[in-house]
Formats: sequence, C-alpha cells, structure tokens
Amino acid sequence: MTPHGEVLTPAFMPVGTQATVKALAPRDLMELGASMILANTYHLYLRPGDGLVAYMGGLHQFMAWNGPILTDSGGFQVFSLSEMRKIDDDGVTFKSHLDGSMHRLTPEKSIRIQENLGADVIMCFDECPPPTDREYNLISMARTHAWAARCQAAHARTDQALFGIVQGGIFRDLREESARFISSLDFPGYGIGGLAVGEPKQVMLDTLEWMNAALPANKPRYLMGVGEPADLINGVARGMDLFDCVLPTRLARHGAAFTREGRINMRNQIFMQDDRPLDPGCACYTCQTFTRAYIRHLLHAGEILGLYLMSLHNVHFLLMLMRDIRAAVSENRFEAFSAEWLARYGGDQTAE
Amino acid sequence: MTPHGEVLTPAFMPVGTQATVKALAPRDLMELGASMILANTYHLYLRPGDGLVAYMGGLHQFMAWNGPILTDSGGFQVFSLSEMRKIDDDGVTFKSHLDGSMHRLTPEKSIRIQENLGADVIMCFDECPPPTDREYNLISMARTHAWAARCQAAHARTDQALFGIVQGGIFRDLREESARFISSLDFPGYGIGGLAVGEPKQVMLDTLEWMNAALPANKPRYLMGVGEPADLINGVARGMDLFDCVLPTRLARHGAAFTREGRINMRNQIFMQDDRPLDPGCACYTCQTFTRAYIRHLLHAGEILGLYLMSLHNVHFLLMLMRDIRAAVSENRFEAFSAEWLARYGGDQTAE
Repeated sequence: MTPHGEVLTPAFMPVGTQATVKALAPRDLMELGASMILANTYHLYLRPGDGLVAYMGGLHQFMAWNGPILTDSGGFQVFSLSEMRKIDDDGVTFKSHLDGSMHRLTPEKSIRIQENLGADVIMCFDECPPPTDREYNLISMARTHAWAARCQAAHARTDQALFGIVQGGIFRDLREESARFISSLDFPGYGIGGLAVGEPKQVMLDTLEWMNAALPANKPRYLMGVGEPADLINGVARGMDLFDCVLPTRLARHGAAFTREGRINMRNQIFMQDDRPLDPGCACYTCQTFTRAYIRHLLHAGEILGLYLMSLHNVHFLLMLMRDIRAAVSENRFEAFSAEWLARYGGDQTAE
Repeated sequence: MTPHGEVLTPAFMPVGTQATVKALAPRDLMELGASMILANTYHLYLRPGDGLVAYMGGLHQFMAWNGPILTDSGGFQVFSLSEMRKIDDDGVTFKSHLDGSMHRLTPEKSIRIQENLGADVIMCFDECPPPTDREYNLISMARTHAWAARCQAAHARTDQALFGIVQGGIFRDLREESARFISSLDFPGYGIGGLAVGEPKQVMLDTLEWMNAALPANKPRYLMGVGEPADLINGVARGMDLFDCVLPTRLARHGAAFTREGRINMRNQIFMQDDRPLDPGCACYTCQTFTRAYIRHLLHAGEILGLYLMSLHNVHFLLMLMRDIRAAVSENRFEAFSAEWLARYGGDQTAE
C-alpha cells in the first residue's frame, strides 16, 4: 500500500526514465493495468531538474500519473552512464552525459532529490561495483552500507518508503553479510542490486536463493533491472516481489515483440503478409486491432505509431504475465504454471 | 456520403502519408472526431506496395481505419519528392526517394494503384507545374486534362468516387479554362491543385474566388494541401469544402502548437515553469491532462510521448476549428465568426 494506491505483488514496474514510460501515455498505462512505475533520479536531476519537478507539484502531478511511483537513487546510472566519475567515501563526482557539466551525488543529496521528486518508494544511494572483483567489493560494500545508514538518517518525508539495497557482487559471504547489515537497519523493503549486469544466469539465480533465505520474509524484495520473462518467473520462484526493466519498451523500439511462444523480430521478411496479431490471443489494443504485416510496415517506414503499438503490447505482455503469476501463486499452482510457461516460451532469451 | 460513412463539410482531412497519421492511432483519430483521412499513393505504392495493401484487404483494413479515406494520385509527390523525373504525354518516369529504383506512373497506373488501395475518394493523376511559367502551364494543363479523361476511362470500381483536379498556375484564364474542361467531365468532386506551393497568399485567395465562380455549385471542392487555420477559414469563405495538410502533425514534431491566440513554440524557455495546458480551454486529452512545462520537458528530452501529445492537440485543434466553422455556417454567422477568429489568432502564420 502506498499513498497512491496498492501494489499487488509480485509486480513488474514499467520504467519511465525521463518521467514518461517511452511512447506510452498515462491513460495507456492505466488501460494496461500498470500499478507502480519507476522513474530515474539521475535523469530527472539532470533534466528537467528535481527543483522544477517539485515546483510543478512533484512527479505524480508533473507526469500526470496518479498511481504509485518508485525512484531509483541515481547510483546505477552514475556508474553506467556518466563519464569521468570519481568515487570517494563521501559520494561521487561525475560528468553529465547530456552536456558534460560536473555534478556531485552523495547519499544525502540523492535523498534530497528523491524527496523533491516525491515518489512513493525511494531507494538508498549505493555503489554498483564490478561484480567479480572481491577486494573491491569488500571496500564498495562497506561504502554502500555506510551510505544506507546516511540515507536513512537524511530521509525526512514520512509519506515515502525508503528501501535499502543489498550489494556484494558474486560472493555468497559478502551478499549474506550485506543482507544482514542492510536488514539490521530495518527498511520497509529491500532492493537487490548489482545483478542482471551481464553475469551468468546461474549466478543471478544462486544469489536470489541466498537473498531469499537471508532477507526478512515479511518485507518486499525488489530485484532491480530485471524484466526478461524467464527471469521474472525464476525471480518469483526465489521470493522476489518487485521487478523493473526498460526491456519491453527498448525491445519495442528495436522491433522485437514478446509472444507466448518466445520473442519475434517484427522487422523480419516472414511477417510481410502475416495477417495475425503480434501475439494471437493477446487482449491488448495492438493485438486486437492490427496485423503483423501492418506493424512491420510501420517499423520499416520509421513511423512513430509502430513504436507505440509495439511498446503497448510488450508492456502489456509483462503486466499480464505478472497477473498470471499472481493468480498461479494464490491458487498454489505456481510450479506447474512456471514449468509450462517456460517450456512454451523457450527458456531465456538474451536481452539486446 | 461514402461507403465508410458521411463527411460533414467543410472538413479538414488529417494526412496519413504512409497509412498512419503520424504518431496517432486510429482510436485517437476517432476520439478527435476525424471523419475522412488522406493517404498518399506515391508513398504506399513504393512501400509497402499497393499489391500488399490489396492482399491485406485494402487500406481501411490494413490500417484499421473504418472511416472514409481519400488517396491522392501520386502526382504531387512525384514532382516534389522523387529524383530524376522525366515527364512525357503518356506519364512520368521517376526515381524512388527511398532506394533509387526507377518507376513509371501513368494515369492508368495511378488509378490501378488507387483501386488496389481502395480509398473511398480517389484523385485524377495530374501534373503540378511551376505556377508562374505561362508557356509551360499551357502545355502542362493540356496534359492534365488529357490525363483526367484517361483516369475517368480507366476507373472501374463503382464504390470509389474519382475527383478531377483543376490546374492552371497563377493565370486566371487558364484556371477558368481548366475548371470548364474538368467540370465538363462531370466528376463527383473537384480538387484545386497547384496552390499552397509558395505563392503569395493573395494569389491563392484570388484563384479560390475564380474557382468558386467557375466550378459546379453542387459538387464538393477540395483545396489540396492547405491546413493553416487562416487558410481554412479563408478557403471556406470562398466555397471550399475539403482540405488536407501535414501541417498539424509536422508542426507537432517541430514543437509548435496551435492555440486560439496563435501558434506557440513549445520548446521555448518561457514555458519552462508554465502550468497551463497548451491551449487553455481546449478539450483534448493533452490539454486536459498535461502542463506546458511537462510537454516542453518531453520535447527537450526527445521523448516520443511529446510528439504524440503535440500531434493529438494540433489535429484536434483543426478538427474543432472545422466543427466551429460548420456551426457558424449553418447558423448564418460565418462572417462574424471568421472576423473574430482571425483577429484573435493574428491572421496568417507562415508554415515551416
């Protein structure tokens, strides 16, 4: 339950990086049954600025989304997008990917920005280290832990839930230590960071097993940055409650559509005269209205409508998958559901 | 009345060049109250091909638009978009702007393509000559007239209305001769071609006066390629019934919005903290939901949603203008409406 409504879990959060889920309007998201969406602190801090968003009444009002919103801390983007970052125990100095201007983020500043943005759930500022360097992960984890305590101390808004983030790379003992420490701060929810960054799939699944055992059972666990259908199912099987990923909208812009038989590339020649919907049986507006042949034409012609229709379908696909997962869980048939689903879909398909 | 519904005139037709009104879905167009839309023969012939469109059940089914559609003849685009065109009395040979391939359009071929596309209203294949060269316009007009007769002879589908097109450049006697000849073929409607191609505004208005007097009173007159609000009003004042233009969607992509006080550039700094809608008092989804500050952010961030919201508003604006014009005409107060509207809007504003 958030100030902007309930979130039925497990849930997938569509990502609205720059205060918009790419190509979709808020009324589309409502139609699709989205509950919580994610927005990016790093992007919104740089443009249009959290001060402007606050002045315009906060993120919900600014982007006209009255449902729940979660903002990340900016940490992940600072480490993946910005140039010339310099990290010290106090925070990170970095160069904007937009205009090369210099900026500094600290735990306190990240919280202040997230308070300005005004999301329902906000995240602790953390470092996302290279996952396989044990020595560095020891230093980095200690820093992330210190920062979590500072975020908690800095956080003043009582209408926002602040989640902690577990790090620790690929190392079981570090992951467990991190889960212990972060849990000891008693956050209302826990993010699992540093996964889905290119590590072998089994490493992610093992880490989720450890986290499932190590984190408090009664608090939501949020697997950050994950949105491949097989990963959602495998994540739920390991006790995960929340997921977010740009995958459905990014794939849409690359011309790839989720179907219940696996992913298809809609630019492909074989769909030229195909009068079926993207995913036969799907109830979204795209599939109820248009053929593959038409959507292929739109993509080849570079038409915006093609990106819209593909985005609508792909986001719908993941939201419906989560709805089906919730039903399977509540009816005690998740294991059968998961086996059947993964066999049909063809297991995991690498993100582009 | 068309096989796909009635068109209340005067009407503005949003342009769906490549079988989509840019950035808008059919359900958006329905919500906006669009009746007839236009699609381009030249573009659809080249991609995806009229054969494919016919195979997919025709343009209505292909693009999921159940309202009336008008296709142009391809003539205008051959003369404005293609390279290396060679015209003779039989037709035009040209190079595709997409891939450099060579193609040939003749009156018969244009009609065959338009029959394949299956619009409710189709247009005669004509030449669009440089408007001020009298000698060339004499030759060209004779050709356009001969082509009109050939189009009429070639047209077999009885569920499509074929409109003639008047040419004649900026010359009153040629325009009147063209109107006489084309009317003598007794088409169910008449397009006025070769205007809105950069000539002084007064030339266009004078030509419309001549056409208003010269064309049959009981048949629709279609002023091709016009969509600036002042031109729509001035066109209606001179007896025009149909208009089409890419202006609302093109302006949207350039960041310009129609408002009842004139056009505004939404990328402008002055809108940074503006919490008003694009056009206060406008009933479209964009204006009912979002602030100028948010839309400006979307445009600066390069977000597709910005193009969608702007397109939705601009098309809505022209459709509502035409609705208001129809009401003013039917209530015998068009002159007062026109004077008030143009004074508030600030007269004409040059297209970009």
